[in-house]
Amino acid sequence: MKALQERIAKEGRIIDGRIIKVDGFLNHRVDVELLNDMGKEFHRIFGEKGITKILTAEASGIAVAVIAAQYFHVPVVFAKKAKSDNIEGGLYASEIFSYTYNKKVTFLVSKQWLGSDDKVLIIDDFLANGEAVRGLVDIVAMAGAELCGIGVAVEKGFQDGGKKLREQGIDLHSLAIIDGVVDGKFIFREE
Amino acid sequence: MKALQERIAKEGRIIDGRIIKVDGFLNHRVDVELLNDMGKEFHRIFGEKGITKILTAEASGIAVAVIAAQYFHVPVVFAKKAKSDNIEGGLYASEIFSYTYNKKVTFLVSKQWLGSDDKVLIIDDFLANGEAVRGLVDIVAMAGAELCGIGVAVEKGFQDGGKKLREQGIDLHSLAIIDGVVDGKFIFREE
Repeated sequence: MKALQERIAKEGRIIDGRIIKVDGFLNHRVDVELLNDMGKEFHRIFGEKGITKILTAEASGIAVAVIAAQYFHVPVVFAKKAKSDNIEGGLYASEIFSYTYNKKVTFLVSKQWLGSDDKVLIIDDFLANGEAVRGLVDIVAMAGAELCGIGVAVEKGFQDGGKKLREQGIDLHSLAIIDGVVDGKFIFREE
Repeated sequence: MKALQERIAKEGRIIDGRIIKVDGFLNHRVDVELLNDMGKEFHRIFGEKGITKILTAEASGIAVAVIAAQYFHVPVVFAKKAKSDNIEGGLYASEIFSYTYNKKVTFLVSKQWLGSDDKVLIIDDFLANGEAVRGLVDIVAMAGAELCGIGVAVEKGFQDGGKKLREQGIDLHSLAIIDGVVDGKFIFREE
């Protein structure tokens, strides 16, 4: 998606050759106009698949997912990251390793909100090693729901999360895939 | 807001006389149509105040805030709850006590994304003892920004967070205020 690539090129930064910072428009300060364009694009890609629910993970996936959900006219379910008092029993749980926080994290989704009649689109803001998305894919499987696709805003193509998911035959689309950085410039994969 | 009150009356539940569960439409499964109606209502209330930024806290405030931001045409900044590798120095930090998680939590906002020229609307999904909102109010003050108002989806009127904020002269509007439960039915404060 051209507008997203241009925004990353203009405002994105690389730290330690590993972390891509896009927190000026995607995951700290959120540009809702850009998110709307992304939501429309997800709908263009996945709109014919009869999606009944969008699944994401807290926290930064939520913004991308709820804006996109407006175009699909379906509810969003977001996986919670820790057991709070407000979540009762009857949970799907999947443990992942968070490279962002450098620790194990458990995703929890109440069985009430995802079931075997659901056709699920997973949406997340970032895909790198793919741990977060793998946790969400696990939860879709536990629910006996159908995984219709995965929509990601920014994929780090130089890590192997996307590759692993595509090799499983999953319909994964990332709106911008960064394959590397040359002379301080982002190299995007051709669409 | 009538539609929100009706939804709480229909689907909300009380646990241990303390926790109000609205996770079927607000903070686990998210009904984006209802959130749009809430966003329009926030804009009706605060739309003339020249808001330049909406501030919320991860995780469940994000959905309410980004949908509302579409009507204000301003970006959202969400406070992060822990220091991840992806946030650099230059932070506003405010420590709160989270009754949801029963522990201290530090809200962090990058100084890059909130400054003294901002006119801020705080939006959150819940207001009970007011700790989360207090943390956000602190951050607005640290930034030297102007606090124009606070919009909350659901306020527990039987806890004192709302009262404390109103006594400070803050323009706080909650779309539904639950004053108590009688015979298993929610009692809403008159609008």
